[in-house]
Amino acid sequence: MSSTQSNHTHTFQPSEFSPIRWTNHTLELLDQRILPLASEWLTFTDAVSVAAAIREMIVRGAPAIGITAAYGVVLSALQHRSSLEQGDHQAILADIQTLADSRPTAINLFWALDKMKAALAKNSIETLAQQAIQIHQQDIMFCHQIGEHGASLLPVQSRVYTHCNAGALATGGHGTALGVIRTAFKQNKIEHVYAGETRPWLQGARLTSWELTQENIPTTLVTEGAAGHTMKTNEVDWVIVGADRITADGSAANKIGTYNLAILAKYHGCKVMVAAPSSTFDLSIQSGADIPIEQRPPEEVTRYKEHQIAPSEVVATNPSFDVTPAELIDAIVTERGVILAPNKEKLKAHFEA
Amino acid sequence: MSSTQSNHTHTFQPSEFSPIRWTNHTLELLDQRILPLASEWLTFTDAVSVAAAIREMIVRGAPAIGITAAYGVVLSALQHRSSLEQGDHQAILADIQTLADSRPTAINLFWALDKMKAALAKNSIETLAQQAIQIHQQDIMFCHQIGEHGASLLPVQSRVYTHCNAGALATGGHGTALGVIRTAFKQNKIEHVYAGETRPWLQGARLTSWELTQENIPTTLVTEGAAGHTMKTNEVDWVIVGADRITADGSAANKIGTYNLAILAKYHGCKVMVAAPSSTFDLSIQSGADIPIEQRPPEEVTRYKEHQIAPSEVVATNPSFDVTPAELIDAIVTERGVILAPNKEKLKAHFEA
Repeated sequence: MSSTQSNHTHTFQPSEFSPIRWTNHTLELLDQRILPLASEWLTFTDAVSVAAAIREMIVRGAPAIGITAAYGVVLSALQHRSSLEQGDHQAILADIQTLADSRPTAINLFWALDKMKAALAKNSIETLAQQAIQIHQQDIMFCHQIGEHGASLLPVQSRVYTHCNAGALATGGHGTALGVIRTAFKQNKIEHVYAGETRPWLQGARLTSWELTQENIPTTLVTEGAAGHTMKTNEVDWVIVGADRITADGSAANKIGTYNLAILAKYHGCKVMVAAPSSTFDLSIQSGADIPIEQRPPEEVTRYKEHQIAPSEVVATNPSFDVTPAELIDAIVTERGVILAPNKEKLKAHFEA
Repeated sequence: MSSTQSNHTHTFQPSEFSPIRWTNHTLELLDQRILPLASEWLTFTDAVSVAAAIREMIVRGAPAIGITAAYGVVLSALQHRSSLEQGDHQAILADIQTLADSRPTAINLFWALDKMKAALAKNSIETLAQQAIQIHQQDIMFCHQIGEHGASLLPVQSRVYTHCNAGALATGGHGTALGVIRTAFKQNKIEHVYAGETRPWLQGARLTSWELTQENIPTTLVTEGAAGHTMKTNEVDWVIVGADRITADGSAANKIGTYNLAILAKYHGCKVMVAAPSSTFDLSIQSGADIPIEQRPPEEVTRYKEHQIAPSEVVATNPSFDVTPAELIDAIVTERGVILAPNKEKLKAHFEA
């Protein structure tokens, strides 16, 4: 673990790259809508703006959303400090609800907000800030552990394929899927990474190919249509992705297109790894079919910035996630270790161990 | 068949929509790079400019490229009329080579140029123009026949999924895959069409969803990442696509992403139809592995118009086509009829019949 805890709760600056900073009781987020062409940090001092930042994808990625929301609760508490100190949580709970309503699929959001709700009982800003920092710090530590566990599964000269961005930018730092790739690269196990561009938000093109190229990890950007062709012609060994919610049966909701990749992988004899911290698991849901799937605005598909692509009268669908059933997943990797050929019993055992 | 032959060879205007017009010995192409936001016809009077128009995708779609190249040869003959009349074909043959070099994958281009080369023997502009018009006219007729044969395979209330644009815009008129959908819609067999957006050129978003929406055929535009999710949640019956080259074993090269769809279709119990005229078949090639696959510039992936998407140091791959093996294809439909579960013997029989 390479992050360091500051000796107070006004500021937390991880020692490695993180898209989230907590500085003098102020939240700073790297604006991921304009990355990598511009690197602009936005400052937040209230929970409602933080909820909007999550909804508008200034910050994205399941773990990063959870961390951000936790800091949002601290900002709410700072705004309502006198009520909090009198044990009146009403205004803060309303802000927590606003944060919870920002996006529906990633369970890490609700997990983090539940932790913050529990910490409310102490009626203390310091306790809340400590809890948020701990969530942030722990996420980085877990990503490094996921990296080690995931890398242990990869053969030397691995050709891997990733989707969307499950990197440092999607987490407190280091990344889940990219955490595995980063750790494996340090172990000289990575021959090449193929990064799917990930329409419509192009997180693969904008974020993943940028993160990997910056670290000189050999990477090729691929349109999603070219995934099958790439797996076949380049003999990809592993598809490695993150997750937004994993259910009791081992089904994983992740960025739309993951389900395609898992089916294509199965056809090509390529393996599928889902890398996620325990905060991504929702064991209260039995099956992937019950995960709520966010539908985002169709304009994200029919427009690019100021350009209309399809005529405005065209109907577009824009589901943000899909669900990959456990039978298409070869390994789920958490900070605790590896679950091979996941199923309900193995998941239960993994978390009871 | 709904196109009419003019009584001279200076002009051919099909009676239905075509992206190609032959007017007073001048070629006009609808600029498909800017459709559907603007409808601009460009005029061509020499073969070298026609070759550039094909390369730059002002016109695209295997049958449309073949027709365009044929008219390009007539333009060359008009430029070199006196040589032609003296039986000197050298300059025209050089232009034919330039046209042949414009794009490598669609066999219709070479098929049409071979026909034009054979017609050179008469040393007559009129013969060449007649041949080009006949190629254009016949393509429209074949698309209507493909439409009838393909529609006969569809059940009522069909939910179909198409990719790229194999529509009127990709042919002389009516379309191959969209010809099947148009004919089936007239027969009240189409409940819904899902159109894949088709990165990086977005032909599905720009052209197919526009063609279908204009005719009030219920259509939803889908990112390629959402293909598996769409097949599963909407119980798609048939994937219907065109082709750029079909080999002796029944493998089909088509727009990148087709191979993905065929694998996803197989997983979901959805059927796959490839609709193409006989000019798309290359029985001289035994296997799909031998089809040359065009690699287009990476900037088509890393940029959108004036916007940089991925940083310029990122490497992108941009194969324009992939190959779907015959075992993933349920039916190949030509103007001659239907080949179910295609293989080498059935293809041979189909064309010998």
